[in-house]
Amino acid sequence: MSGRIAVPLNKAYLLLNHGPTVLVSSAHGERRNVMAAAWNMALDFDPPKVAVVIDKATLTRELVEASGEFVLNVPSRQQAAMSLSVGTTNGREVDKFAAGDVIAEPASGVAAPLIGNCLAWLECRVIPEPNIQQTYDLFLGEVLAAWADPEVFSNGRWHFPDAERRSIHYLAGGSFFATGDSFEA
Amino acid sequence: MSGRIAVPLNKAYLLLNHGPTVLVSSAHGERRNVMAAAWNMALDFDPPKVAVVIDKATLTRELVEASGEFVLNVPSRQQAAMSLSVGTTNGREVDKFAAGDVIAEPASGVAAPLIGNCLAWLECRVIPEPNIQQTYDLFLGEVLAAWADPEVFSNGRWHFPDAERRSIHYLAGGSFFATGDSFEA
Repeated sequence: MSGRIAVPLNKAYLLLNHGPTVLVSSAHGERRNVMAAAWNMALDFDPPKVAVVIDKATLTRELVEASGEFVLNVPSRQQAAMSLSVGTTNGREVDKFAAGDVIAEPASGVAAPLIGNCLAWLECRVIPEPNIQQTYDLFLGEVLAAWADPEVFSNGRWHFPDAERRSIHYLAGGSFFATGDSFEA
Repeated sequence: MSGRIAVPLNKAYLLLNHGPTVLVSSAHGERRNVMAAAWNMALDFDPPKVAVVIDKATLTRELVEASGEFVLNVPSRQQAAMSLSVGTTNGREVDKFAAGDVIAEPASGVAAPLIGNCLAWLECRVIPEPNIQQTYDLFLGEVLAAWADPEVFSNGRWHFPDAERRSIHYLAGGSFFATGDSFEA
């Protein structure tokens, strides 16, 4: 089982700096959802901010706009098939939490769930920018809390233990890259 | 020597989808510059758009705002030390093109140069959003032309030939990840 430790907010950008694909989880009222998003990035160090693209056609978009909150979850290679599945199904048509491989755990400061067995989590509040949300599907968020599995990230460093428990980078058509070797320039 | 072939605009997002660190090159009048940016992402498919964070303290910011153009260059692991160097020096203090490892080649539709020996290139025109530029240092661009070295990207697919000629993902403190194994979910 994986654990979860708090990541200091001024280190939260490190969870996204290498460009992994994330899962965006959301909730509003009785409804909740999760989708995949390759189009995400850090936007500021401290207070940490993020940017993510959320298409108008998604249930996630509706829940994020209604709640003003979302969580960015960093999935592992073990979760690649699940990430592809939640990225290619519509939350209005299927309950993505029903299959059993998508586990919802409570967050600390937002209603959106943390997705279990991920590598890291960023709880975010939407920074309202209605014009860019509408024009570009682009959402900005302030990170309220950040967490990581200490087996893979601690003291401001990623240290992946094996080939399966690494972050992933989506390409297209079901293909991903795993995060590769670390090296010093 | 690496070559360069046009990437169809509706495939340009694939050059950034896996979250590589890029070099942002710019030019205005007689001046030009290049900096590194881990905080970049694709923003739309077709016409392709991108987003990138460009700090107010940089010469790049001045040149991009003055010209309304920039190029995102995808460097290889062979260029990691150069990427770190151009990411940690100030273009107002040093001519980053003087060292010899930063090669400026002409672009097709913008004044900003293409950086030689990179893996891929996206020539971009700024989509003016003055409020988010000023508030978040966030720049949106439309991709006017895209190029790739056919040794590493062709027919809409990355196919890195060896460990050195792969894209890279910056962490912090001079550390990078290489793009790792590709796999199907």
